[in-house]
Amino acid sequence: MLFVPANRPDLAAKAPRSGPDLVVLDLEDAVPPQEKDAARAGLPEAVAAVSGSGTPVAVRVNPVGSAWFDDDGRALSTGIAAVVVPKLDSAAAATRALELGVAVVAGIETVRGVATAQQWLTSGLAACYFGAEDYVADLGGVRTPGNAEVATARALVGMAARLAGVPALDMVTLDFADDDRYLREAAEARALGYAGKLCIHPAQVALAHEAFTPSAEEVDRARRLLAAYDEAVAAGRATLAFEGEMVDEVVAKRARAVLSQAAR
Amino acid sequence: MLFVPANRPDLAAKAPRSGPDLVVLDLEDAVPPQEKDAARAGLPEAVAAVSGSGTPVAVRVNPVGSAWFDDDGRALSTGIAAVVVPKLDSAAAATRALELGVAVVAGIETVRGVATAQQWLTSGLAACYFGAEDYVADLGGVRTPGNAEVATARALVGMAARLAGVPALDMVTLDFADDDRYLREAAEARALGYAGKLCIHPAQVALAHEAFTPSAEEVDRARRLLAAYDEAVAAGRATLAFEGEMVDEVVAKRARAVLSQAAR
Amino acid sequence: MLFVPANRPDLAAKAPRSGPDLVVLDLEDAVPPQEKDAARAGLPEAVAAVSGSGTPVAVRVNPVGSAWFDDDGRALSTGIAAVVVPKLDSAAAATRALELGVAVVAGIETVRGVATAQQWLTSGLAACYFGAEDYVADLGGVRTPGNAEVATARALVGMAARLAGVPALDMVTLDFADDDRYLREAAEARALGYAGKLCIHPAQVALAHEAFTPSAEEVDRARRLLAAYDEAVAAGRATLAFEGEMVDEVVAKRARAVLSQAAR
Repeated sequence: MLFVPANRPDLAAKAPRSGPDLVVLDLEDAVPPQEKDAARAGLPEAVAAVSGSGTPVAVRVNPVGSAWFDDDGRALSTGIAAVVVPKLDSAAAATRALELGVAVVAGIETVRGVATAQQWLTSGLAACYFGAEDYVADLGGVRTPGNAEVATARALVGMAARLAGVPALDMVTLDFADDDRYLREAAEARALGYAGKLCIHPAQVALAHEAFTPSAEEVDRARRLLAAYDEAVAAGRATLAFEGEMVDEVVAKRARAVLSQAAR
Repeated sequence: MLFVPANRPDLAAKAPRSGPDLVVLDLEDAVPPQEKDAARAGLPEAVAAVSGSGTPVAVRVNPVGSAWFDDDGRALSTGIAAVVVPKLDSAAAATRALELGVAVVAGIETVRGVATAQQWLTSGLAACYFGAEDYVADLGGVRTPGNAEVATARALVGMAARLAGVPALDMVTLDFADDDRYLREAAEARALGYAGKLCIHPAQVALAHEAFTPSAEEVDRARRLLAAYDEAVAAGRATLAFEGEMVDEVVAKRARAVLSQAAR
Repeated sequence: MLFVPANRPDLAAKAPRSGPDLVVLDLEDAVPPQEKDAARAGLPEAVAAVSGSGTPVAVRVNPVGSAWFDDDGRALSTGIAAVVVPKLDSAAAATRALELGVAVVAGIETVRGVATAQQWLTSGLAACYFGAEDYVADLGGVRTPGNAEVATARALVGMAARLAGVPALDMVTLDFADDDRYLREAAEARALGYAGKLCIHPAQVALAHEAFTPSAEEVDRARRLLAAYDEAVAAGRATLAFEGEMVDEVVAKRARAVLSQAAR
């Protein structure tokens, strides 16, 4: 998911080139208050600029309950694949978001949102993301490169997403030139069950694809492990030592997941 | 918040010199059972010794439900700014604490307290602290310098405090000579949204003030960031690259929080 | 708790030699589907092989609701000390497990299990374990050597176990030749309040005993600390500086716990 300010049709037109799964035209934090009207008016053109290239496009509206939400909802163009609704924090807010009538990606990025997500994420939402920048601003905390201050919240969002059966996307990395950080965070997120990671710069899209696709080494190891496991099972055993590690059905299950992910 | 044993009027009299925001005369763990009566009898004198210097003073009573709680409550002197009630772990206990008739600082330092804090911290309490030493004793665990064993509980208390709208204070650092550890833990706590950190030694007070006050570098960066952001907004844009980082409204919001904290 | 495939009577007979507290004959992940019947038929012999040596023995059945659970329950031998029920995730499943009529060790190893354990772990279960391999498979995540992806879940299980008053056992270490990893994870688990750690290889049993028994240094320090504390208390004070650390009643309480654990 690559974010582009909704009032920057020039950037929207170029966004598909980096190969994102979805381009998000942002009406919220990327657009100043006095530009919200103009950005809404420009949505059909921006949507067309993206979708003309074959890339699905979504719009991020302002939060439910904000002064802009209703106008944003009325301005949604036909042709969008989803609406991204930030700072969702209650069942009531999720209901309002779903009334927009298009697939909803929920932003979980407030303390209340994280604390209550398990209660409302099951209500029909299509996906969710964890927004670390807003979460820490709401918490009154400080963002640090080690991300310790969001570790618990990030894990809780991954759990809530799994319980709701919706894919979760990891927080943005604001240091857009720091590829190592992006890749490290993406690996952490994948380990926590996240399905992808937000991008706020075109250069991050390739990193996201790389990080959430099993590597050749992972695929190779999974294949060899499953071959050894299947052979053991055929011989009546479901445990074996494989390259120094005890393998049983659950380890085999995770290896199958790697192959299935690689085949997508 | 600097803790002093309630039965040590000599230490109480000296406590204000280190510049704490609040001196807490401790009737709980710092006073042996056979000394509780004498400590209560000495409270008016100890309170006067602290407040005479202009520093607010509080009393930590024994836990709700302990053999000493009722007597502690009756012994509370006039002139105290707050009562600190340790090991709060239920709405019923919070209600008992509030009946003491003075502002209550809640100790969240049992597994039940951490697990239920979101349910009762909103009930009118003035502040709370996370007590790692008691938490780990209750858990049956082991305290380690890395604090991994309290990471989740500490984060959950920070979240509960934010949801309740009360300031949270971080755990004590028992190694009173280890300034680096105190400062490291204080920085972690500030990142997690904590507003301060308990002190059990006068030398820790200056460290707490230092750690919870934005540094000159932070203030300077926040000013420059906001200047650049405001300029961009005036030009119709709410995103910009600032020193290698993507900035939008939420990053600006955190920069404003730094300036507001520095101005206190 | 040392796991042995239930269809490997040869391994079961040898399992007591490593000195485990409990040998678990595994009908679940260690036995392939086509071998479940034969493994059940062999249970009485395998149970006798273990218990003949004086070591308590348990059986891990397949999960409540699986195609094998009812047959597993009917096949439970007399002479077993407990039944291990994997992937428990609801009060209803816990009730079914308890109907087996023998002490139940609950496997908490799904996202739902971790998220709901506080609600049903109090229902009469004898112990529980955190299963990281299954948890991460269920989460759709990746297992890493640093275990960051299970940190929150592992802490939550430790909290739930404490609230329920049941001992918790830590996840397996699949790298059975990596003693350092086993010991590191065991120390982390002990700090989190866990009472022990699962073993999937006989060589891990001695490591578990070592890791969950206070070391001579710990015992010695606890003794000296308590001597100094008791002397201070006799003199009317419950706080003192001991080897650079501030000690009060709660620190003394943890020292007493070390001595009590060492005396077992």
